[in-house]
Amino acid sequence: MCHDFHGTIEFIGKRWMGIIIYQLLNGPKRFSELTENIPGISDRLLTERLRELEKEGLIIKAMIPSQKKAHYELTPAGRELETVISSILNWIRIKQKLSN
Amino acid sequence: MCHDFHGTIEFIGKRWMGIIIYQLLNGPKRFSELTENIPGISDRLLTERLRELEKEGLIIKAMIPSQKKAHYELTPAGRELETVISSILNWIRIKQKLSN
Repeated sequence: MCHDFHGTIEFIGKRWMGIIIYQLLNGPKRFSELTENIPGISDRLLTERLRELEKEGLIIKAMIPSQKKAHYELTPAGRELETVISSILNWIRIKQKLSN
Repeated sequence: MCHDFHGTIEFIGKRWMGIIIYQLLNGPKRFSELTENIPGISDRLLTERLRELEKEGLIIKAMIPSQKKAHYELTPAGRELETVISSILNWIRIKQKLSN
């Protein structure tokens, strides 16, 4: 999916995908933390998005030894998406200035 | 739509949207040039995407005086999307290196 421009921009543009990546850029999160931090997302859709991210090699599901619970964290490739996310945030600031 | 992160990433992630912006970053294009350069896109969907881009203030439809025909060109806000597009292209290169 994420090996060409077309596939990548439509993958990260999927409903809720950008927000999930944005959350994980702030550090590993448990499923319940993600549902809490992303109001409006259903468990079903979050499960689907996490599976898609895992399949693309952008996140891994790891056990937290001390808590015997799992959390999701970005892989190196996933963390590299920070540049894309910040370029979008930067563009929003510029667009707001241009429209004032 | 494009005033927050969530709306923006899902807007540019809409089917074909990224490729249309990518094409217009290479200069103004007529409708027929866009359908030629984007194999697979239907006239109906291209019309819809151009209308959405116009509504967001990212493109304008202008007459080409010499040819009495219209073309589409990016506004200043639209041209600023170049940083987002190049960050995605850059990410794809990094992802490919990480997976080799």
